[in-house]
Amino acid sequence: MSAPLVLALDAMGGDFAPKMVVKSIKIARKRYPNVHYLLFGDEAKIRPLLKKKLRPYCTIRHTPDAVTNDDKPSQAVRQGRNSSMWLAIKAVKDGEAAGIVSAGNTGALMAMAKLILRTLPGVNRPAIATLLPTIRGESVMLDLGANAECDANNLVEFAIMGEVFARSLLGLDRPTVGLLNIGSEDLKGTDTLRLASQMLRDNAPESMEFKGFVEGNDIGAGAVDVVVTDGFTGNVALKTAEGTAKLYSTFLKSAFEASFLAKIGYLLAKGAMDRVKKRTDPRRYNGAMFIGLNGICVKSHGGTDHVGFANAIGVAVDLVSNELNEKIKEECRHLGERVQQRAAAPAEAGQPVDAVVLPGSPTGPAASDGAAQAL
Amino acid sequence: MSAPLVLALDAMGGDFAPKMVVKSIKIARKRYPNVHYLLFGDEAKIRPLLKKKLRPYCTIRHTPDAVTNDDKPSQAVRQGRNSSMWLAIKAVKDGEAAGIVSAGNTGALMAMAKLILRTLPGVNRPAIATLLPTIRGESVMLDLGANAECDANNLVEFAIMGEVFARSLLGLDRPTVGLLNIGSEDLKGTDTLRLASQMLRDNAPESMEFKGFVEGNDIGAGAVDVVVTDGFTGNVALKTAEGTAKLYSTFLKSAFEASFLAKIGYLLAKGAMDRVKKRTDPRRYNGAMFIGLNGICVKSHGGTDHVGFANAIGVAVDLVSNELNEKIKEECRHLGERVQQRAAAPAEAGQPVDAVVLPGSPTGPAASDGAAQAL
Repeated sequence: MSAPLVLALDAMGGDFAPKMVVKSIKIARKRYPNVHYLLFGDEAKIRPLLKKKLRPYCTIRHTPDAVTNDDKPSQAVRQGRNSSMWLAIKAVKDGEAAGIVSAGNTGALMAMAKLILRTLPGVNRPAIATLLPTIRGESVMLDLGANAECDANNLVEFAIMGEVFARSLLGLDRPTVGLLNIGSEDLKGTDTLRLASQMLRDNAPESMEFKGFVEGNDIGAGAVDVVVTDGFTGNVALKTAEGTAKLYSTFLKSAFEASFLAKIGYLLAKGAMDRVKKRTDPRRYNGAMFIGLNGICVKSHGGTDHVGFANAIGVAVDLVSNELNEKIKEECRHLGERVQQRAAAPAEAGQPVDAVVLPGSPTGPAASDGAAQAL
Repeated sequence: MSAPLVLALDAMGGDFAPKMVVKSIKIARKRYPNVHYLLFGDEAKIRPLLKKKLRPYCTIRHTPDAVTNDDKPSQAVRQGRNSSMWLAIKAVKDGEAAGIVSAGNTGALMAMAKLILRTLPGVNRPAIATLLPTIRGESVMLDLGANAECDANNLVEFAIMGEVFARSLLGLDRPTVGLLNIGSEDLKGTDTLRLASQMLRDNAPESMEFKGFVEGNDIGAGAVDVVVTDGFTGNVALKTAEGTAKLYSTFLKSAFEASFLAKIGYLLAKGAMDRVKKRTDPRRYNGAMFIGLNGICVKSHGGTDHVGFANAIGVAVDLVSNELNEKIKEECRHLGERVQQRAAAPAEAGQPVDAVVLPGSPTGPAASDGAAQAL
């Protein structure tokens, strides 16, 4: 039997921690029998929860402190060196664990992970990526909130990291990638987006099929495997999708309760309805990846239960097993080489990236064309 | 009987024009018996469609040209002076019509409307606003794509215009207003959003209840009556919501088709399902307002049918009847006065708007707090 894959779990993060974290191991254990868990947190609280059957696969690492949801990231970084979150991340840095999963404070987790793990060579900004349900299957979206404002280079980085993520997690050979915009034509959107699009057209890796711009409705339609955007837009889009799903199911619920016939119909169709519920269950898509860091770090939704947390553990296992970070490092190195080659031989390979002249400007007529045409 | 309200219709705009435009008048006629329609377009095509019963309420104005969906706004403005779109807008400018409705090219319509009607005094940028379904009822959202990039002043303007829109169209006394952000705490998001929030806290009209920041999921929840955002984010959010609704209904449809029992259940619950369909019918929410212009201009979805176009006509009728633009002009004048008063007496009323010091910067630790905390 091969050596176990060790994962560090922040047992104190999340609304229902540590109970839901410990409980999740029972599910994860069945799915990934070769994983050993380092549980970081308050030993007095964790030990009584840990059933005898699971003990051989778990090691408790007592930590005196825990980061709360109200802690500001800067504060957590300064004062949280003895917290379960910090020490769990440190276990990855020190090579004790292959990855870490936490349902704690997102901002604190990102700040600590950046400080402890550092970014991968060639990556300027880590991003938050996740899988989303689509009509066609599943897609990757990033960034979801790590970087509120992004330049074209950041977006290109996200595209590369997202494409590797899609290959690793979805098992695709050559994922399609799109930049989220307010129209699909080349003229639409901001200068930043047009520049990023040009850079990807010129320098995308062989393994990426760059599709140009996609729009908000293309996310649910699954028009591309990887949707790339800045953290502000990505976060708003993700939460808008959540809100719309809730709106729809609320309307449906009240409609089914409105008449006797509808109630009977609901009972007969309950199996079908449950399938839809399962397919759109947020727990199924729990586990966002902090991508671009020198170590696997997965963020679980804070409000999830043990089923959701077990899925986040699954994301970490998949990413470690698929050597995601090794692949990202390689792609970033290749990208750097391609850009340098183009810069050295512009006559041969077209204009170098930094000399690309883009149509329009935010105040010019072309940009105004782009904006108002969007609806 | 009072003098009829005259509306100009671009009879050539939209995928199913002119038929759907002419057909919509039958529905609108029943709802608004006091409206007379000026139909701009190809007379040879329009006249045969116009049923005898409707002729007393319609005047055809022959126009030789029509703007197509492929025309760039700049091109449409230069070459489309004899188009149905241009001449219909001009009828509003010339006082012949109280408002115009078009299902044509959004960018061209906005460019032409800006050029012909000009913006209201005190308004720098017109915005696109619409009503959206929420769990609580209906909310207004703007901008939806007229301005891809916005500064704090633009967002404050949108908030004021949106609040007046909500009072006019939803009949609210004191609408609640929120700025769309990636977290509800004051620290979250961009400098632009934090400045706009500060300005609204200091200078919001009496008639507005400013609620600070809201998130993507708050749109569907109806957390505020007016959701304010830039045209890029608003367009992505709106289209993401559309895409999610489609994803949900596709999942539902395939689930109901998957088993015999589910099919029977569906038949029994069909009435309930149809009610949900009706409640989320995009045609019901058709009719986006170009807000901030010196004239009422309503944009219908290009792909809508006569039912949707009749709703867009309804939006125009409501806005004209409620004297939306007069109210916006008044609020903008008041805002200017309040800002000047504060600027003149900073010691009394706190710091003037342009001296507001906001925490953090896009690259500083506080801003990084704001961004990554978002999930």
